[in-house]
Amino acid sequence: MMRRRTFLQGAAAVGAAALLPRRASAAADLKPIYAQVDKHHGEALARLQAWIKQPTIAAESRGITEGRDLTMRMLRDAGFGKVESVSTDGHPGIFATLDAGAPRTIGVYFMYDVKQVDPKEWSSPPWDAALVDLPKLGKVVMGRGAVNQKGPEAAFLSALHAIRGAGKKLPVNLVLVAEGEEEDGSPHFGEAVHRADVQAALAGCQAINMPSASQTLDGNVDITLGAKGVVQVELRASGERWGRGPKRDIHSGMRPAVDSPIYHLVLALASLVTPDGVDPAIDGMEAKVRPLSDFEKKLVADVAARRDEKTFQKEFSIEHWARDLSYRESLERLSGRPTVNIQGLVAGYQGPAGKTILPHAGVAKLDIRLVPDLKAEDVLKMLRAHLDKRGFADIEIVNQGSYDPNTTPYDALGTRTQLAVYRAAGFEPLVIPRSGGSWPGYLFTEAPLKLPTMHFGLGYGRGAHSKDEIFVVEPKGPKVEGIAGAVRSHVDLLYTFASIK
Amino acid sequence: MMRRRTFLQGAAAVGAAALLPRRASAAADLKPIYAQVDKHHGEALARLQAWIKQPTIAAESRGITEGRDLTMRMLRDAGFGKVESVSTDGHPGIFATLDAGAPRTIGVYFMYDVKQVDPKEWSSPPWDAALVDLPKLGKVVMGRGAVNQKGPEAAFLSALHAIRGAGKKLPVNLVLVAEGEEEDGSPHFGEAVHRADVQAALAGCQAINMPSASQTLDGNVDITLGAKGVVQVELRASGERWGRGPKRDIHSGMRPAVDSPIYHLVLALASLVTPDGVDPAIDGMEAKVRPLSDFEKKLVADVAARRDEKTFQKEFSIEHWARDLSYRESLERLSGRPTVNIQGLVAGYQGPAGKTILPHAGVAKLDIRLVPDLKAEDVLKMLRAHLDKRGFADIEIVNQGSYDPNTTPYDALGTRTQLAVYRAAGFEPLVIPRSGGSWPGYLFTEAPLKLPTMHFGLGYGRGAHSKDEIFVVEPKGPKVEGIAGAVRSHVDLLYTFASIK
Repeated sequence: MMRRRTFLQGAAAVGAAALLPRRASAAADLKPIYAQVDKHHGEALARLQAWIKQPTIAAESRGITEGRDLTMRMLRDAGFGKVESVSTDGHPGIFATLDAGAPRTIGVYFMYDVKQVDPKEWSSPPWDAALVDLPKLGKVVMGRGAVNQKGPEAAFLSALHAIRGAGKKLPVNLVLVAEGEEEDGSPHFGEAVHRADVQAALAGCQAINMPSASQTLDGNVDITLGAKGVVQVELRASGERWGRGPKRDIHSGMRPAVDSPIYHLVLALASLVTPDGVDPAIDGMEAKVRPLSDFEKKLVADVAARRDEKTFQKEFSIEHWARDLSYRESLERLSGRPTVNIQGLVAGYQGPAGKTILPHAGVAKLDIRLVPDLKAEDVLKMLRAHLDKRGFADIEIVNQGSYDPNTTPYDALGTRTQLAVYRAAGFEPLVIPRSGGSWPGYLFTEAPLKLPTMHFGLGYGRGAHSKDEIFVVEPKGPKVEGIAGAVRSHVDLLYTFASIK
Repeated sequence: MMRRRTFLQGAAAVGAAALLPRRASAAADLKPIYAQVDKHHGEALARLQAWIKQPTIAAESRGITEGRDLTMRMLRDAGFGKVESVSTDGHPGIFATLDAGAPRTIGVYFMYDVKQVDPKEWSSPPWDAALVDLPKLGKVVMGRGAVNQKGPEAAFLSALHAIRGAGKKLPVNLVLVAEGEEEDGSPHFGEAVHRADVQAALAGCQAINMPSASQTLDGNVDITLGAKGVVQVELRASGERWGRGPKRDIHSGMRPAVDSPIYHLVLALASLVTPDGVDPAIDGMEAKVRPLSDFEKKLVADVAARRDEKTFQKEFSIEHWARDLSYRESLERLSGRPTVNIQGLVAGYQGPAGKTILPHAGVAKLDIRLVPDLKAEDVLKMLRAHLDKRGFADIEIVNQGSYDPNTTPYDALGTRTQLAVYRAAGFEPLVIPRSGGSWPGYLFTEAPLKLPTMHFGLGYGRGAHSKDEIFVVEPKGPKVEGIAGAVRSHVDLLYTFASIK
């Protein structure tokens, strides 16, 4: 194995990145650890499969206790000295520490829950964690949570096993916090994080890492400098609340003289977006959107230059960007724009053909993604005021988990560590100002902790929140790493974090 | 029993109707028949209950054959000489005749299907046909189809049993056509009606009667002079058809740069109605709406004067008319206005909480009610053109059963018969220009048959297309008739139809 440290720094050098050699040589002292990674590959895979086979779905209150207990066992097995369940008003969090007596401490964020599934959509059952051979990718594990987030998290734990297996002490201390409600909008994670002893332990960290699969099929690896906030709400319209329309489903023959709560909801939804359906139109939101800075735009331009557009579109089954904007503009939007999205509509008759009813109620499930300087609490108020002003005061807004966006500086210790590790592995990372998704990182990046965050890890997966979610186990080509490469990257991260200036 | 013939005629006299005595005396020669009605009350009830216990739901292809066979047996039992199944491209119709050698022939329309149910909404299971005591109404049978339409139809059949039981020959001949897809929009009933021998038999009729429960809780009885047409369609939006947005559900983090097929559908739906959601706004529809005539408005004004507004609103669980219009204006709208109604929305994630997906598809189930001179075929074209013009050409319109409105003259034989029978029973009917609901009566009222239609019958029920559908068996107060009164009214109808000038 060849591993060399590149000296390219920052966005200025990115043009040359695609030409860099891959698989640079390993630092000599990590070789025994890498040997452990290779030797225990089967255990690393089995660890991930066992985890996937335990569904934990917050929205369905499914497998919470079992998932938490399994995660706690896995943490103890990986060497965490103290592993505690942290009760909240919702599903419990986990607090774990590993004191290696090292000068630096890295915080780790885990989620032990996964998204819901519709099993009949899947080509292999989502809880089977089956090994599947894909023609282009190679051997993958398929199952809910494979990439979001158990694959990367299991790889991180396997790195701890490998270091211990090589007879070495961790080069950093660890403080881990986990939750079982991430996919539900982390409604109670703040309670766990704010517990005095947890907060004190986190305050001793220099960064927070959420293990991730950061490679893409075009041979790149991503660093993200933040994530969006999210407001997840249900808008509920009903004749009961409105005082208009029927209070139960009635014969639709009454429609000429009776208001329709569903149409009321549809008109409210239409008012929340621009006429082309693309941008939010909630009063007051736009004024709070902080435009991307020139530096952020430069980062995005680099992504546009180096990430293949067609491959990216194909990954998400799309052919055209909204408004037929350019690739660069679309990537800027992914990092820089808030959204109003309808996740689902549940209203009236759902069965085959028709029922000729005038339904009394309907529900729209929205997720509203936030960029700085939008705050979840403010957006909830803006939404309420927007609806009130337009005659939709009766429409109930049910908050189902909302939090603020988060930002990590480009020059933060965590960011510099990632750049160094990836470059040492032969990659010049694509630096994305803000990911399109959300996680409760604001609990770390904002006061009082003000910690930089990372979403680190080699490896590749896809299908988060979708069907046929996968994580690559043994890649066919050289484009992405499998489990072993992911585990090695976490070894590298810990050693680099311990020593980087 | 007192029964007297009133001599009040027409709309001019309606103001006095509320003062009329009820339960006028029976014509002497019908007394033996009425005696049979009373004697066989239990059988009449059992007939209805047995019918309700056999679900037939076209939209779910449920119990079609069983429902048809049961209906055919019931027709034979009631004295129909010829009873045939009429195959169509959909579910079968029924054609039955009873030749009494009488000068006049009355056509009869039956539906043997019922609306879908959501059993968990019901206070008594919808297929139990249980007898329930309601504090105000008395003894009722509760079950799907109780009033729409098995209760009235069973009462009609019991009238035939009673006449035969009294040793009498029917005073009219009968030609009956039935379908099992009425609740699905009668997509194949035309095929049955247009079969040469069926059409020939219908051409020999002087009117078509659909047995109904025409009483209301305020002590009135309704005659309707027509019904609306209906266009039942699904609007289907998807990334596949649109060529924009995702072709499968993807992570909603992509929303800033990816179009949303569900929002596309929502915006299309919003364009179909006026900004307040009340009236259709499909291009071209309004120009084809024939306003109510002065005579029709006079009929409506009479209804407004004599039907209690609060009772009517309560029956449909509403507190306010759309646009806070007056009662009279709202009743005019019920007879005179077309509608665009959303029966149901099925789009994206339907489960608890959220799933943060950008869904690739959504479906809206619409029913569009038609008044003259709107034709179903034209409205389907208008809808297509309206969507095409506004950038919704990709949204698929799936026609799920559509037909034209129908109209019966005030001075038709059937209308005069109803007026005479109700007046003889002590009622001055409320004459409604057009019911808010729909049935495929245009197959009878339009060329070549051009027959007047009736929705005749004493009796009361409610809950059509809704939960807890009922038909009154033994009323507590004097306001509405039970099964026996309904059966007697059908006896009266047949004799009056045979003899009226």
